[in-house]
Amino acid sequence: MKRFRIIVEYDGRPFAGWQRQPDAPSVQGAIEAAIHAFSGENVIVYGAGRTDAGVHAAAMVAHFDFERPMSPFRLATAINSQLRAHPISIIGCEVAPGFHARFDCTGRAYRYHIINRRAPLTWQEGLAWRVSLALDADAMHAAAQLLVGHHDFTTFRSTACQSASPEKTLERLSVTRHGDDIIVEAEARSFLHHQVRSMVGCLALVGHGKWSADDLKAALEARDRTALGLNAPPDGLFFVTAHY
Amino acid sequence: MKRFRIIVEYDGRPFAGWQRQPDAPSVQGAIEAAIHAFSGENVIVYGAGRTDAGVHAAAMVAHFDFERPMSPFRLATAINSQLRAHPISIIGCEVAPGFHARFDCTGRAYRYHIINRRAPLTWQEGLAWRVSLALDADAMHAAAQLLVGHHDFTTFRSTACQSASPEKTLERLSVTRHGDDIIVEAEARSFLHHQVRSMVGCLALVGHGKWSADDLKAALEARDRTALGLNAPPDGLFFVTAHY
Repeated sequence: MKRFRIIVEYDGRPFAGWQRQPDAPSVQGAIEAAIHAFSGENVIVYGAGRTDAGVHAAAMVAHFDFERPMSPFRLATAINSQLRAHPISIIGCEVAPGFHARFDCTGRAYRYHIINRRAPLTWQEGLAWRVSLALDADAMHAAAQLLVGHHDFTTFRSTACQSASPEKTLERLSVTRHGDDIIVEAEARSFLHHQVRSMVGCLALVGHGKWSADDLKAALEARDRTALGLNAPPDGLFFVTAHY
Repeated sequence: MKRFRIIVEYDGRPFAGWQRQPDAPSVQGAIEAAIHAFSGENVIVYGAGRTDAGVHAAAMVAHFDFERPMSPFRLATAINSQLRAHPISIIGCEVAPGFHARFDCTGRAYRYHIINRRAPLTWQEGLAWRVSLALDADAMHAAAQLLVGHHDFTTFRSTACQSASPEKTLERLSVTRHGDDIIVEAEARSFLHHQVRSMVGCLALVGHGKWSADDLKAALEARDRTALGLNAPPDGLFFVTAHY
């Protein structure tokens, strides 16, 4: 038996999220089913993060144990050929003895893509959040710095969050504009459930002037989910990297 | 009656191309039908270029004449609301007396997106050409310079091309790599039918070493469609700008 580390790219639109669920399509479930389809082996695929319904990944890291002797190259090819019906792709695969995708992870990075325009989206539909009201990305970036550091993020946490503590250390939260595209990048050792989407939603309020930076600070300090201004939709969110 | 200039973004996947056709969905036909749906007016929408089936546009320029007095803002909103079922979006609209999208156009720019990796695509499926064999983008860029300038492009022209002459002046053809992404950018006053896809296909042969730069030069000088090495698929091709 060998442990394999895989890098997974996926389009989250057709899935109820990363995590296997009894009655809904999931990324984890689709990969496990693909492995079973060619090998007969019942594996459990552990991911570095559990993305929500509609959230995408450019490079989710995961691992699983596999009995049959196979090279990483042939294994990735076999999984991909079984995944043809799904927008999931194994873009990296290697033997990684003792590696644990979730517990060994020392940092996670997400990217959120806003398209700031009035016109509807075309090929970006479901892959970005269209915001019609003009956003001031510089104001969003300045306000975002109030969230960086060690805080109680209860305001930005889903009521369904299973994390033991609402305290997290946000290493980086940057907002940059390139034409109509606004990119929010977030890095931390780990995040609470809905944390990135909740931070992005409130930054959008700052961006169109409904909230001041002080309002954002007050929301953080309230440590109360009802102080949340807005939860951004899953569409624009991508899991981009896991560090080890 | 006023003439309007519009900028159109579209995802070419569901369409048989830009041009209206009796029995197939087209971008031109969808916009004309959208305008008719709210105004009752039968307009003809003229585009700067006629993209093929499956080819996309980030900013196609077009014009049409419209009777009912309406501001550009309200007109664009009305068209977009009728286009909801299609991945077509009017991203710009202005009054432009005497403007002709096709005849006044002095330059057109296309971008072609190759993803150079073995793993299948996910959200980029249909929006990029996946090439499994390793490509040398520097060799592609160097060879591409042999095509720049005024030439008889018969080799790179579809047999269905309706252009009066096979001679065109290619202003720019650049190839750059960013990780697995290879971007080909082409600019000219106008292009022959299939010219960009045919140039990209042959550059890919150069990129993985099947053709030398001299082979590309020989193909150009043959002035013969049968000397074409490869026609790249429409998936990665985007109409990006029209200059006036």
